[in-house]
Amino acid sequence: MIGVFDSGVGGLTAVKALSRLKPGWDITYLGDTARVPYGTRSREVIDRYALQACRFLISKEVDAILVACGTVSSNSLPVLRQNFELPITGVVEGASKKAYENAMAGNGIIAVLGTAATIKSGAYEKEIKKYGGNVRIISRACPLLVPLVENGRTGVDDSLSNIAIAEYLADIIPKKPAAVILGCTHYPLLSGIFSLFLPESLLINSAEEAAVSLCGLLEKRHIDVGSSGKSVFYVTDDPSGFSKNGKAFLGKDISDRVYQISID
Amino acid sequence: MIGVFDSGVGGLTAVKALSRLKPGWDITYLGDTARVPYGTRSREVIDRYALQACRFLISKEVDAILVACGTVSSNSLPVLRQNFELPITGVVEGASKKAYENAMAGNGIIAVLGTAATIKSGAYEKEIKKYGGNVRIISRACPLLVPLVENGRTGVDDSLSNIAIAEYLADIIPKKPAAVILGCTHYPLLSGIFSLFLPESLLINSAEEAAVSLCGLLEKRHIDVGSSGKSVFYVTDDPSGFSKNGKAFLGKDISDRVYQISID
Repeated sequence: MIGVFDSGVGGLTAVKALSRLKPGWDITYLGDTARVPYGTRSREVIDRYALQACRFLISKEVDAILVACGTVSSNSLPVLRQNFELPITGVVEGASKKAYENAMAGNGIIAVLGTAATIKSGAYEKEIKKYGGNVRIISRACPLLVPLVENGRTGVDDSLSNIAIAEYLADIIPKKPAAVILGCTHYPLLSGIFSLFLPESLLINSAEEAAVSLCGLLEKRHIDVGSSGKSVFYVTDDPSGFSKNGKAFLGKDISDRVYQISID
Repeated sequence: MIGVFDSGVGGLTAVKALSRLKPGWDITYLGDTARVPYGTRSREVIDRYALQACRFLISKEVDAILVACGTVSSNSLPVLRQNFELPITGVVEGASKKAYENAMAGNGIIAVLGTAATIKSGAYEKEIKKYGGNVRIISRACPLLVPLVENGRTGVDDSLSNIAIAEYLADIIPKKPAAVILGCTHYPLLSGIFSLFLPESLLINSAEEAAVSLCGLLEKRHIDVGSSGKSVFYVTDDPSGFSKNGKAFLGKDISDRVYQISID
């Protein structure tokens, strides 16, 4: 079984990608909805919440974990890998590789968008620089985008989301980056607006790339994760809002498989 | 000693009011910054967090608690009063009384602004209706205002905050309410913008009114809360951001009195 973890509902992007790539794989999802958002918190608190989340997933006997949260992936992977032996994939590596390849094939410019904690960590820059090529990276914290998405402000003509994105991208737009990493699982829901401002850039969905990486890793290591096609969802706050959002993300009703639990 | 509790930094409005009314009183503040915001969470989770917060303050030997959080005041006061014997004052009662008096002296219309959880609770309506007079109450959840304030979008000319407030108040503005309850401790920081849209309305700062109520209650009951003028601040996430905000709220440096603790 694959464990997928996010601070809230955004990680369902990764579930969708996994289900598309490997329709039969069993998935256990954890959304820490009672403590979302993580992106404004300190590294110490993010580490603590991430350890609690992984402990819960391991108690459900998952064989591997996809950390579908940009903030946790950027800050806590070393701590998680130090504490747990199973394979753990975050969203930074796959997206960085794709961005690097596209930047090298294009104008060499990459924009990284993420929460305050993700950008502060510098995790994407460090990962991209490992490839050694001559790329220019512009990073930008976009702290209001998670609350905007959580409040349903995802319409292409939403005035608040348009103004916020125009402001965050003001000095990035004229540089026409070859690749833009949407380094938070909420951001793909604003792709319509990003495309308006950056029509020539490749928008990279970090959760999609993480799903591809994890599938490759498990096949290479010959790890069998079960294939009954069952998925179950755990949340730390009332399941009703999550079920509603889940339908929007996944295109199917999951309300009979969402359970509320406590992990703190 | 008075215990003041909020999900984050907003409750410092109440500390400021208490310090103005009773400069010598000892204050212990708790901001649950590792789990802010509360206003999007379910009643069950809000109750649990509020119980943990009050248990912590009681362990610090406070004589009374001011719940300076609109969401907790609207949802969890009955549970808190059931569990603890010391006097506990929320922000609903004082603001409701003042709004009622002003509405009766004016056009009879009251607007209540708050988080999703505050508005869903109906706590302000219930409290105002106790007075029995013929008032009309319009309630509105303003879920994006807390993230906007937390991101420092409090300037009178901030485009995002102006658009958000204009949208939330669209049908309230033409009714020119006599009184507008700012039912969340973050909202007074947006008073400049509220005044632009509602120049004829009295804006009621719920934390200010709560401080007045609590002082009256303690004097009536002859409860001595100490008067060394000491204040100490506890937060559940990194203290540095809180200290910085604290200076903006209180007009003085509190960084040597802010400590990080865990309450979950």
